Amino acid sequence: MRIPEYNDIEQAHQRIEKFINRTPVMTSESLDRIFGCKLFFKCENFQKVGAFKFRGAMNAVLMLSDEEAVNGVATHSSGNHAAALALAARKRGIPSFVVMPENAPMIKKIAVDGYGARITYCHPTLEAREETLREIVDRTRAIEIHPYNNTNVIAGQGTAAKELIEEGPEFDLILCPVGGGGLLAGTSIAVRALSVSTKVIACEPAGADDAYRSFYSGTIVPSINPKTIADGLLTSLGSLTFPIIQKNVDEIVTVSEEAIIKAMRMIWERMKIIVEPSSAVTLAAIIEEKFDVKDKRVGIILSGGNVDLENLPF
Amino acid sequence: MRIPEYNDIEQAHQRIEKFINRTPVMTSESLDRIFGCKLFFKCENFQKVGAFKFRGAMNAVLMLSDEEAVNGVATHSSGNHAAALALAARKRGIPSFVVMPENAPMIKKIAVDGYGARITYCHPTLEAREETLREIVDRTRAIEIHPYNNTNVIAGQGTAAKELIEEGPEFDLILCPVGGGGLLAGTSIAVRALSVSTKVIACEPAGADDAYRSFYSGTIVPSINPKTIADGLLTSLGSLTFPIIQKNVDEIVTVSEEAIIKAMRMIWERMKIIVEPSSAVTLAAIIEEKFDVKDKRVGIILSGGNVDLENLPF
Repeated sequence: MRIPEYNDIEQAHQRIEKFINRTPVMTSESLDRIFGCKLFFKCENFQKVGAFKFRGAMNAVLMLSDEEAVNGVATHSSGNHAAALALAARKRGIPSFVVMPENAPMIKKIAVDGYGARITYCHPTLEAREETLREIVDRTRAIEIHPYNNTNVIAGQGTAAKELIEEGPEFDLILCPVGGGGLLAGTSIAVRALSVSTKVIACEPAGADDAYRSFYSGTIVPSINPKTIADGLLTSLGSLTFPIIQKNVDEIVTVSEEAIIKAMRMIWERMKIIVEPSSAVTLAAIIEEKFDVKDKRVGIILSGGNVDLENLPF
Repeated sequence: MRIPEYNDIEQAHQRIEKFINRTPVMTSESLDRIFGCKLFFKCENFQKVGAFKFRGAMNAVLMLSDEEAVNGVATHSSGNHAAALALAARKRGIPSFVVMPENAPMIKKIAVDGYGARITYCHPTLEAREETLREIVDRTRAIEIHPYNNTNVIAGQGTAAKELIEEGPEFDLILCPVGGGGLLAGTSIAVRALSVSTKVIACEPAGADDAYRSFYSGTIVPSINPKTIADGLLTSLGSLTFPIIQKNVDEIVTVSEEAIIKAMRMIWERMKIIVEPSSAVTLAAIIEEKFDVKDKRVGIILSGGNVDLENLPF
């Protein structure tokens, strides 16, 4: 797969514009006062399916030729990418096939089902998921859309940072969570093209710190048994996202579970918006003073808002 | 006190404009699909202090002459009005005195204190609250600002509906919660002036249905032992709000606690925003099919977002 360029993000934006929500950039006087800086939150929790993932999935689905699209798209995922791909496929009028672990939360099963995906359940191991997906792709000839190691997905994810930069002031820093690296890769390409003096800092749970270790060792070090409340960030960098991140990102920091929960709660209480734990790693890094934000203009990508309200950490 | 006219709302708006947040009007494709109508949510949960109350308090504080203002303002309240009045006083640079019941939730004490109010605690009875307030007003010569039975407060609250109508389409219905009736009175005056064909429907918890009973009996019937999770709606109509409501409101409906919780949860899950139970009575009325919304354009005032996250009903 080809490494996307800023041009791909620009074209992706035109392509997906009428399907996505142009999400608001929110500010909070009280958080600004607490941290002594100016924070600008790009609210992808208000994106369709409740997460930025819809941008990448929609772009990937629209990039398929009619011949490719006719048999539908497929993925294995228990999270936001599955819902995003299902909705993107429905918008194009093609089928979607999703492999989910049988122990996925009921709320996620219902969501993915609600967007019209054909779900196949499998044992909750990566091997079973990949094997089941392979069978489905062989049988249906659907096109597999990887959640992050995919040029068109990365280009789509980059459109969130593009909108943020277009609307915001000149940023000193842009903060972005990192899991598989799709959002971070897209964000970093957009920032490098649009705002040369802005630093890109990635934030990662200490309990799933493969990006941190990969970035500073120069070679992909996958997480073995990642453990974090930020369930969207359990995945490890891919062969496509890693070199992009290596090239464009200035710094990667890790944060504690305690800070993630505290940050999530602050966003809920002060901003009155619902974000998932994965979205809170960026503010967690500010809470833990991982870098200097004093008097700086800081863009923050809030990645999503899908939380199980019956399982809150507070 | 004088019954406010639309002119008062217009002037209030100019007066408070640079102090308040112009809150967004949000829509939700998924809720529209569920209920078969077009919903437009005026998000006063994003207002300063997390509730519409700041509009009325700011207007009332700005309406004071310098002579009146110099000794500050006072109120008894355990809720959003206390925080709103404290912040409004701070913005004008005058003191504020707040009488709170000693058993008020710690989170509210901290909030009101954080806005700089001088708090006096008293026994948690209405008599003790009124008596303590009287003593403070006598001693300090501060001006009492009632949370809803006040011309300038009502005029301020009406600015939320004014903004909603200015931004929205032509509404068939505008739905508003009712407690003491300040928001409802202001809303109803704005709607009657700006959109003659729009019906104003007030929604009230069945467990605190004094407005419902007063409206349909033609005389104020205060709640005796109101009980509802919608803690902002425990108060009863006032001598000023009642006649305004009688004249301008088309209908009052009551809703069950179950529907309030269900509606609150739907707003959290589908819209990814935090609203307090008092804000959810309007969607609760739609859930319980208290009136016909089919294919209608419905404006909804979400009154606030101050919730104790450690005490959620789900």
